[in-house]
Order: sequence, then C-alpha cells, then structure tokens
Amino acid sequence: MAGTSLAMRSMASRQLFSLSRRSIATSQALRAEPLRPNFQSISRMARRGYADAAPSPSPSPAAPSPSPAPKPKKRFRFLRWAWRLTWLSGLGLTGAMVYSIYSLRHPEEQFEPSPDKKTLVILGTGWGAVSLLKKLDTENYNVVVVSPRNYFLFTPLLPSCTTGLIEHRSIMEPIRNILRQKKATVKFFEAEATKIDYEKRIVHISDDSEIKGDISDTEVPFDMLVIGVGAENATFGIPGVRENSCFLKEVNDAQNIRKRVMDCVETAMFKDQTEDEVKRLLHMVVVGGGPTGVEFAGELKDFFNDDLKKWIPEIQDNFHVTLVEALPNVLPMFSKQLIDYTESTFKEEEITIRTKTMVKNVTDKYIEAQVTNPDGSKSIEKIPYGLLVWATGNAVRPVIRDLMGQIPAQKDSRRGLAVNEYLVVNGAENIWAVGDCAITNYAPTAQVAGQEGAFLARLFNTMAKTDAIEKELQHLSDTQSQAKSNDERNQILDEIRERQKQLRRTKQIGPFQYSHQGSLAYIGKERAVADISWLSGNIASGGTLTYLFWRSAYLSMCFSSRNRVLVAFDWIKARLFGRDVSRE
Amino acid sequence: MAGTSLAMRSMASRQLFSLSRRSIATSQALRAEPLRPNFQSISRMARRGYADAAPSPSPSPAAPSPSPAPKPKKRFRFLRWAWRLTWLSGLGLTGAMVYSIYSLRHPEEQFEPSPDKKTLVILGTGWGAVSLLKKLDTENYNVVVVSPRNYFLFTPLLPSCTTGLIEHRSIMEPIRNILRQKKATVKFFEAEATKIDYEKRIVHISDDSEIKGDISDTEVPFDMLVIGVGAENATFGIPGVRENSCFLKEVNDAQNIRKRVMDCVETAMFKDQTEDEVKRLLHMVVVGGGPTGVEFAGELKDFFNDDLKKWIPEIQDNFHVTLVEALPNVLPMFSKQLIDYTESTFKEEEITIRTKTMVKNVTDKYIEAQVTNPDGSKSIEKIPYGLLVWATGNAVRPVIRDLMGQIPAQKDSRRGLAVNEYLVVNGAENIWAVGDCAITNYAPTAQVAGQEGAFLARLFNTMAKTDAIEKELQHLSDTQSQAKSNDERNQILDEIRERQKQLRRTKQIGPFQYSHQGSLAYIGKERAVADISWLSGNIASGGTLTYLFWRSAYLSMCFSSRNRVLVAFDWIKARLFGRDVSRE
Repeated sequence: MAGTSLAMRSMASRQLFSLSRRSIATSQALRAEPLRPNFQSISRMARRGYADAAPSPSPSPAAPSPSPAPKPKKRFRFLRWAWRLTWLSGLGLTGAMVYSIYSLRHPEEQFEPSPDKKTLVILGTGWGAVSLLKKLDTENYNVVVVSPRNYFLFTPLLPSCTTGLIEHRSIMEPIRNILRQKKATVKFFEAEATKIDYEKRIVHISDDSEIKGDISDTEVPFDMLVIGVGAENATFGIPGVRENSCFLKEVNDAQNIRKRVMDCVETAMFKDQTEDEVKRLLHMVVVGGGPTGVEFAGELKDFFNDDLKKWIPEIQDNFHVTLVEALPNVLPMFSKQLIDYTESTFKEEEITIRTKTMVKNVTDKYIEAQVTNPDGSKSIEKIPYGLLVWATGNAVRPVIRDLMGQIPAQKDSRRGLAVNEYLVVNGAENIWAVGDCAITNYAPTAQVAGQEGAFLARLFNTMAKTDAIEKELQHLSDTQSQAKSNDERNQILDEIRERQKQLRRTKQIGPFQYSHQGSLAYIGKERAVADISWLSGNIASGGTLTYLFWRSAYLSMCFSSRNRVLVAFDWIKARLFGRDVSRE
Repeated sequence: MAGTSLAMRSMASRQLFSLSRRSIATSQALRAEPLRPNFQSISRMARRGYADAAPSPSPSPAAPSPSPAPKPKKRFRFLRWAWRLTWLSGLGLTGAMVYSIYSLRHPEEQFEPSPDKKTLVILGTGWGAVSLLKKLDTENYNVVVVSPRNYFLFTPLLPSCTTGLIEHRSIMEPIRNILRQKKATVKFFEAEATKIDYEKRIVHISDDSEIKGDISDTEVPFDMLVIGVGAENATFGIPGVRENSCFLKEVNDAQNIRKRVMDCVETAMFKDQTEDEVKRLLHMVVVGGGPTGVEFAGELKDFFNDDLKKWIPEIQDNFHVTLVEALPNVLPMFSKQLIDYTESTFKEEEITIRTKTMVKNVTDKYIEAQVTNPDGSKSIEKIPYGLLVWATGNAVRPVIRDLMGQIPAQKDSRRGLAVNEYLVVNGAENIWAVGDCAITNYAPTAQVAGQEGAFLARLFNTMAKTDAIEKELQHLSDTQSQAKSNDERNQILDEIRERQKQLRRTKQIGPFQYSHQGSLAYIGKERAVADISWLSGNIASGGTLTYLFWRSAYLSMCFSSRNRVLVAFDWIKARLFGRDVSRE
C-alpha cells in the first residue's frame, strides 16, 4: 500500500511536475507569441490542450518541450510575402500618383526671366514642341510659345477617340498646364504663325479663331526660333478628297468621324431606305494602310462588334469596313510576319484589305480607284461608301513653304525644311526645326519628334550653361589683370582652369541621334502587333498579350498623370458600359 | 510531519485538481473559441496563463471558472455593428449596381408585336417621350419613335457640361439603349417631323442630317399620336440674338459655349491686346434669371475661381460674369428667402445681377438693354460682352404651329397645343401632347413633362387592357348564345361578371394631376437652393448641405445606372484634376 502510494505519489508529483512544466511552457508560448496570434499557434495550443485534458492510459514520459507543429509550408509563406509586396507596391504607386496629382494642381510660384535673356520663340504644341518645353530650363530664356491649338494632343489614341471609347478630353493636355509647371514664366499666344521673316527675325502671328479682339495680327521678334508646326493633310491633288472625306489628325476630326458614323447608321435605318443605299451607307472606307488607318479600321470594327450590333441588330449583315492602300502591303514599317499576322486578323474580323489600290477620284457617294490586278494589269473600280476616312499623307504647310522660299539653301527641298545633324535649318542661323516639318532621314512619327525635342532642350540648356561659364571666364580674366598679389592671381588662375574644364565638358554635346524604340499598332479584336527594339535586335510579337503591352505602353507614354488616370478611367468605363451609340 | 504531508498532499491534490480543472477549462475554452480567435480571448488566455505560471504566494482557493475579462464597451459594440452595417450595405449597393449594369448590357430577346395592334407614333426623345417609353407596355402597340436626336439628354446637368465639369456623354442616353430594354421591338427613325396631317393621320418625316440616303423624306401613318417635340429657343424678335448669342438647350450648345469661353480668354491674352478689349472679352453675360441662367452663371464663376485663375493668372482682375433679367427677381418660382440667399451668394462670388433689365438689341460686341431705374424711369444702357448666353424663352415649333392651324379648336391658342385634363389635344382625336409643346396650367419644366409621360403610359396600358377585356367579353357573350347546357351557361355568366368587374376597375384611371416635388438650383461656390414640397408645406433650404442634396437628387434622377456612374466618375475626376482649360 505504502509502496503503491509512494509510486502514485511520485507519479502524481511527476505528472504534476510535467503538467506544471507544460503550463509554464504554454504560458511561455503565450507570452512569446505576439498578441496577434496566428492560426498555427492556436491549433498547436488546442492540440496541447487536448493532450492535457485526456487522461493518458499509460503514464507516458512527459516530454519537457511541446511537440512542434508541422512547419508552415514554404509556398504559403511565399504567397504571403507576395501578397504583402503587392499591396505595399500598390500603396506606393497610389502615394506617388496622389503626390504627382497634388503637385500638378498646386504648382510653385513662377518668376519672370530677366529681360537680358535671349528670346526663344517656339511654334507649335505638338510632340516636338512639347517635348522640348518639358525639358527646357526656362529661366535661361524668354520663352514664347505660339500655336493655334492651346493643348497637346496624345495622337496615338486618336483612333480610339473616334468611336467614343476614349473621351477627347482624356488625351488633351492644356499647354498652360504644362507651362505653369516650369520654373520661369512662359508666354503663350493662341495664334497661327502666318509668316516667318528670316531677315528681320520676326514671326507674324494672326488670331484666326471665331472671336477676335481689336488686335488680331501682330509680330513676335525672336533671337532663337524653333519650328514645330508639323504638316497638314495631303490630298495628292485628288479631286473631291477635301470636300467628302474626313481626316484623322485633330480632335475635331475624331468628333466629326464619330458623328458621321452614327449619321450613316441612322440614315441607313431610315424608313423605306432602299437595299442598295443601306449597303452603301454602311460601307466604311479607310484610305491609308499605315498605323493610323489600321488602328482606326480595327477600332471601327470593334465598335460594330461590341456595341452597334447589340443596339441596332438590323445592320448586322450590311456593315463593312474596307482598308484601301496603294502599296502592296499595309504597315510597311513592320516585319513581314507581323504584316501577315495583321492581314490574317483582319480576315477573321472581316475587314477587307484592298492593297495596290490607288484612289484617283472621290465623289460624295463613291471613290474611283485604280486597282493593280495580280497579272499586272490595271483597272478602274468604283467603290461606294458611306463614310470615307483619309488617313494618309503629309503636306508642307504654307508658312514653311514661304520660309523655304526665303532661304536659298532650301530651294531644292521639296517635302519640308532640310536640317543638319544639329537640327539647324540649313542656310539659316538660330532657326531649328523639329517633327514633321523637318526633313531628316527618319520617318515622320511622334517618336522621332519627341526625341528631337528632347535633344533640342539638352542643346539649349547646354548653350545657356556654356554662355554663363564663358561670361564668368571673361570676368575672371578681367579681374586677373587687376590682381594685387601672387596668391590672388594663383587663386584666379585655379578658378579659370576649373571653368575651362567645365566648358570642355559641357561643349561635348554630340549631334542628334535617333534611337528607335519600336513600333506598335492595335489591329482590333483586342490584339496588337509590336516590333520592339531590344539590344541589337528586334522582338516581333502579336496577339492579346501584346495588346495588354500596347495599353500599358501608351499609358506610360502619356505626358501627365492626369492623362494616364483619365485614359484608364475611360477604358474601365467602356469595359463596364460599352461605347454609346448616340450621334454626338 | 504526516499531518503536514497530508495537508500538503491534499493541498497538492487540490492544486492539482484546480490546475487540471483550469487546464480543462483552458482546453474547453480553446475548443469553444472559433479557430479564428479574437483579441479578447487571447488576452484572457494569456492572463490565465500568467496566473497559471506564477506560483501563488498563498494557496488561493482556485476558482473553478476562469475570471471573466471586462465586458467590451457598449460603444465599441455599437461601432462594430455600424461598421458591419456600412460595409454590408455598400456590398449590397455594389451588387445591385453590378446586376443593373449587367442587365443593361445583356438585354433579353425582343419579339415583334402582332400587326393587328394599333400603331402608336411618338414624336420626340425628351423628358415627356422617354418617360412615356420607359413605362409603356410595348407589346400592346406597334410603337414608332421619331426624333432628330437619337438620345435622351439629362438637361438639368447641361450647365455643368459647358465648363467641362461633366462630359456630354455622361448625360446622354442613346434612345436605342432604352428601346432595347422593352419587351417588344420599337422602331426608331432619326428624322424630323416636318408636318402632321391630322385628317389623313400621317406624319411627314424628313432626314435633315448631313448624310442623306436616296430616301430622305417619307410618311409614317398613325392610329395614335403622342407629340413631345418640346419648344425652340425664343428670341422675342430681338435683332441679333440668333447670330451673336449662344443658346443653352442641347449638347451642341454646351460644346459651343465651352469653345467660346476659352476663345474669349485666349483672345484676351493675345499679344498687344488693348485694355478695353481685354475687359470686354472677359465679360460673360447671361440673359435669363431662371434656373438655367442662374446655374450657368454659378458654374462659370466656379470654373474661373477653381481653374482659370490658376492657369491663366493674368485674367484675374478682368473676368466678370453678369446675369441679366427683365423681371424684378431671379428664380421667380422660389420663395423670397431663397431668392435673397441667391442674391447674397452671387454678391459674394462677385456675379453682378442686373434685374429689370430688358434686352432690346444685340450686336457682336455689346447688348443694348432698357434698364428700369429705382425711381421708375427707364434708360438705355450699352453692355459690352465677350460671350453672350441666351438662357430664356420658349417658342412654338413650326410643325406645331402648322398643326394648330389645321384644328379649329386650337385657333385661340398662342403658346402651344391646348390640351384637356387627359392631355388629349383639344379638337383632335387620338392625339396627345406632353411637355413644353402642350399648354397646361403647369410650368414648362422637365418635372411636369416627366409626370405627363408617365401618366400617358398608365393611360395607354390601361386602354390596352380594357380593349383586351372587352374583346373577351364580346367573345364570351357570343359563346353564351351558343351554350348547350345550363351549367355551361352559368359558368360563362360567372366569367362575364368577373370580366366586367375587372373592366370597372381598370376604367378608374382619373385625369392627369401634377404633383410638384420641389425646385432645385445650383448657385455656385458649392451651394444650392432647394424648395422641396413636404406633406402639405415646403422646406426651403440653401447652403452646402443643400448642395450635397442637389448632387444626390440629380444622381438619383438620372435615367439609368450608366448615367449615374458616369456622372459620379466625372465629379470625382473634376475633384482630383480640376476642369481643363483647353479650347475644345
């Protein structure tokens, strides 16, 4: 009895000891756990509690430390970190966006540049001019901007604007917003440059808007002039183009096209309209197989597939889009496989491509085109249309042609101002040209104009710095001759050497070199083609992933956070509600 | 020794007992707690653990149940429930919105109404017509809608559209979207009704858009006609109004005003513009002291205060808005205190109100107005302006005037079609009129037109039901005369009595009764005035809370979820980025 009781006692005391140890362990575990427990420690404790509660049938040697729970799977931990990273970066992105929007709406104070600075006049508010303005240090010059258009237009998204997918306001950035962000004030006059007087160094400007004041013509003198007026639409002398077709260059054009598309549709739905007329009215013809024409054809077909068909089912069988191109291929700047991919996608979407078809005449109901048949013969064909969009051709603006007439070195130039490798207009001094109005070896694209503008900004900033250093050198050598002591002279010599070193560095700006980033085009049906420069080669890709890349690339290219957010909003709105089919 | 040991043993066993009980309690607590623990139970357990670990200095009588944690404060629990309610209702709202948008984009199949149904022709796509269409059971009639405008416009927000605060597309609802939601197909012709032939029961329609097909004039025969064409802008015979001023009735008008405002500003900023011209160009004059004129004046001043001043600080001192009204007060339909509040707010905002000022002549640079001085005398004053907005006056459309000429009973009517209490055009049969083109005792407002349209829908639905029941009664009495047995005859008699009861019930539709909900107007500076009908009286209120009410009231009045979301998006965009100052 005593033995048993002793044994029991010792067992009891051992159990007691083990229990108390477990309790200590539990409490320690509880204290060690952060007050925000996780699933595992609870389940661990629960399991221990179960062990505590159930009387063990055999006196198990109490393990002093609790049995470890199975380690959290590595995958789960990875996912947890991935999640944290995701929402942290989302938070960071939102913070950056908020800050950028705040600084947009609360720009700093500006000061007037001092009147002894040179007057730099910039004509235009397109890719070249705005790219220059963004990077220019405006405190070095008295900058004056002249343009009949008081906003910058993000032209790559203009085809999306024609179908109401994107609001015009989302791809416009008022020039005054851009100028307000600069350190020094910049003047802006909403006027058209009618004549550039090279000899007298004067630009004649004219207010040609609807509302004119007493003064609507005046002169702007310049020390330096940058011409970024772009080009106008070319009709190649074909009769009837200007009267009957829609261009696709400005916001007005996009709104016009939008109205006309719906006008055609509603007129086709008019009571008792003849079958032939319905077919004609619903035939949309796009002339020009470059990126603009291709993107517009794709967007139009999307509009039909996603929205028009739904709300106006009667037009299903008769709505057609045709792309007309004089060359043998569309998208000539892309690689062959991408051209083939585009053509096969268009075939899927039932967009007709008529290559080797040159438009000769345009009436209000049909176009006459010269078609080159496969056997080489040519024939004239009449193509009836309801809407004709002219998405091709750059022509020289009158003000440029006039300037070219004034400069002897330009008389052989046909398509625009010939410029040297520093973008200086040949035969002129202190006049530069960027963008479509300047003839370089490069294609007349937004990318080229943007890089040219940025180059000029670097050039002008450097020139201003060089001027400043040269002035200081002059001042130093003057003081040197008046130096009293050797020490002072040595000090001044040191500073002179320093400045000369700076001068050599800043003067190292090389000529303009265009670096082609690649080409993108949307081809409809949520697919895009991309020819991206990568290291020393290309990546050609096409499809829906490329479409997502196209979207993000365009979003990042937008010139301000405001445009980015507005365009993203528009894409979300269109995804939720579709485009609308009202006539405005 | 034995005694102590016994005591100790009993104490030990008691402690053991208590510990084991506490462990059981702990484990029970752990099991009872849901596997996702909350803060309190952990802290409770932690505290218990602490109690377990620390050796108690005196053998405390172990309480069998753990000490309860302090009760969560009532306020905390209330907040917790409030939070749950908030996000639950947010979730519910989002779900309802998603469902509504989904059903908008995926409408059900429609069927053609049978050809023996009467043809109901509706002229117009305004408040009256669309309100009727929304509630009409389209399977009872062959419905044809004719309007030169293929969308419904939410006119109360048109003044906001002029300054770019709201995109025009956000307040437009394509009529085809509305018609697609109906059970039976409805035809729509985008054309203007040029002549209503009352005798022959024909409407002559004409396609007057830019793009015309072969057929652009045709006829639409009707059995029943609803005229909701509205009114046009009245110029009261004052010369120069139509050529020089902007109206504010359609989307075109809003876009035009927008362009002109920026045009005036940019022309005022033109180089070397004279001081007087700058003052004139920046003077914006609004004629018409009703809600449209007041709201537009307020919005314009907001645009200046919030955005224009920031981007173009040079115009600060010269930009002025003036509201011109011929009556002694603005907002005549509101109560006196609200009129006073509006006038004092306008004074704060520096909007000049010129009451008792009647415009007599308009040139392209100034208006000539007859001002009634406080002493009663009248004088002519020249007010120079840059932009003139004509926000007043309804005139009869030519097609209505022509119809009035055809009906003898209408020859005394001047301002529109005289209608009876069922909105039937006096002297005509099966022609109804709603909205501004119908002369009733009520004001020509959107609210009245909306209620009239809904009334007509009820009327037409009832008429169709009555027709159906009467047909069945006819059929039953025919079968009755051919009944073979008494039972059959009794059964038919029962059905006849049932139908007659139904007929009496449906015929109980009374005449049209307008129920005035109230008036709202935005007066700028984030304040609004509201005169709301409440039970048998009014609540007049003004201020920023009323402005929030104004916003939510307009949001709820929007005709579709799509418009609601788009308008809300626009308000958010404007809050984030401001309005833009580009010219389009």
